[in-house]
Amino acid sequence: MATLYHHPFCAQSRFLRLVLGELGLEAELIEERVWERRLDFLRMNPAASTPVYQEEQVGLVIGAMPAAEYLDETRGLALGERRLLPPDPKGRVEVRRLMDWFNGKMHAEVTGYFAHEKIFKRFMPVELGGGAPDMASIRAARANIRYHLAYIGYLHAERNWLAGESLSYADLAAAAQLSVADYLGDVPWAENEAAKHWYQKVKSRPSFRPLLSDRVTGMEPVSHYADLDF
Amino acid sequence: MATLYHHPFCAQSRFLRLVLGELGLEAELIEERVWERRLDFLRMNPAASTPVYQEEQVGLVIGAMPAAEYLDETRGLALGERRLLPPDPKGRVEVRRLMDWFNGKMHAEVTGYFAHEKIFKRFMPVELGGGAPDMASIRAARANIRYHLAYIGYLHAERNWLAGESLSYADLAAAAQLSVADYLGDVPWAENEAAKHWYQKVKSRPSFRPLLSDRVTGMEPVSHYADLDF
Repeated sequence: MATLYHHPFCAQSRFLRLVLGELGLEAELIEERVWERRLDFLRMNPAASTPVYQEEQVGLVIGAMPAAEYLDETRGLALGERRLLPPDPKGRVEVRRLMDWFNGKMHAEVTGYFAHEKIFKRFMPVELGGGAPDMASIRAARANIRYHLAYIGYLHAERNWLAGESLSYADLAAAAQLSVADYLGDVPWAENEAAKHWYQKVKSRPSFRPLLSDRVTGMEPVSHYADLDF
Repeated sequence: MATLYHHPFCAQSRFLRLVLGELGLEAELIEERVWERRLDFLRMNPAASTPVYQEEQVGLVIGAMPAAEYLDETRGLALGERRLLPPDPKGRVEVRRLMDWFNGKMHAEVTGYFAHEKIFKRFMPVELGGGAPDMASIRAARANIRYHLAYIGYLHAERNWLAGESLSYADLAAAAQLSVADYLGDVPWAENEAAKHWYQKVKSRPSFRPLLSDRVTGMEPVSHYADLDF
């Protein structure tokens, strides 16, 4: 069986779990606390980041983007019409643009702050930067998420799914990022009906279920976190 | 003809110029100062980032990674043995890992600081964040570049090129990042002979020549910048 080194609140790891779920692939999940810099993990991935996907056929695949590309190349065709990276060049360009947007830009401006300040720092020793959240970072993330939510709403108002007429990696990347902020109650859903409607659609997929049962030790999610109709 | 919206000292744009050069593709270069947030550019790319590649067959391709994937999918096969994203799954996984490493991690830890603090801020109005460089950021970049240089040296000591036995996107991404720091005299070449030797090989390629004639207005490069044998 494949293995996924991940953290339940690393948004890029969540993206890959959604991808594996949509592909119907099972993987053993190993929780990695990257700040502990476990030597065996650093040997696998000197960047010390999650996710890392491993399967016998190819060995280690480091990073969400390389893993998504690899899984499309080796499993994508079998999905037929449901392929998550569409076959036409224009479609691929748009899905990759948005995958980059959410896994890269939204993570840097929003989700990375939330996860680091509100979750990871609870488990990090003080000497490694653990402790109380930095409120300036959280305020920045709360301001920035509004633009990302508006952009999701804008895309969804024009299209059935974010990158076009079918579910794609773009939706899974966006939903994975949002799901971390949503756990913390930091998504201002009332501001954008279209974005909320789109998220309900993604959240209802069977691939999403495992994410909805993740819990931070000692920190309950916002009450609607696991509701499909919130 | 194709068009590339770029900045001469945006390392990701430099990566794409190297890719186009290796593929023998010409593109009209349009310099974009993203901090000016030009409305027509924002309409093309709401992320307001360079590079943006445009050609008739596909329209706009936003971002270095989507453009590299697109160009491989549409032009890669014609390169035969010289293909920059190798055909075997293991090879592709490794090239993408390193492309991510240099365009993402090294940019975030090193080149982004250097370019922003030392170059872009010279041209940005004060109200948009222009002005004198922040020395703490530059010190961080100078500390971090040593690890990236050591990693390049380590990879090159094991392999002919960074990702394996042939030139790949990984080499072009790493060299593009280093070239920006090198212009500024911020690469401690004396620390790593293997990395220096590898950079000389990439720098000697015809695709690299246009980068060596780029100049920051009012700021000469370090004396060895354009020397192939430094």
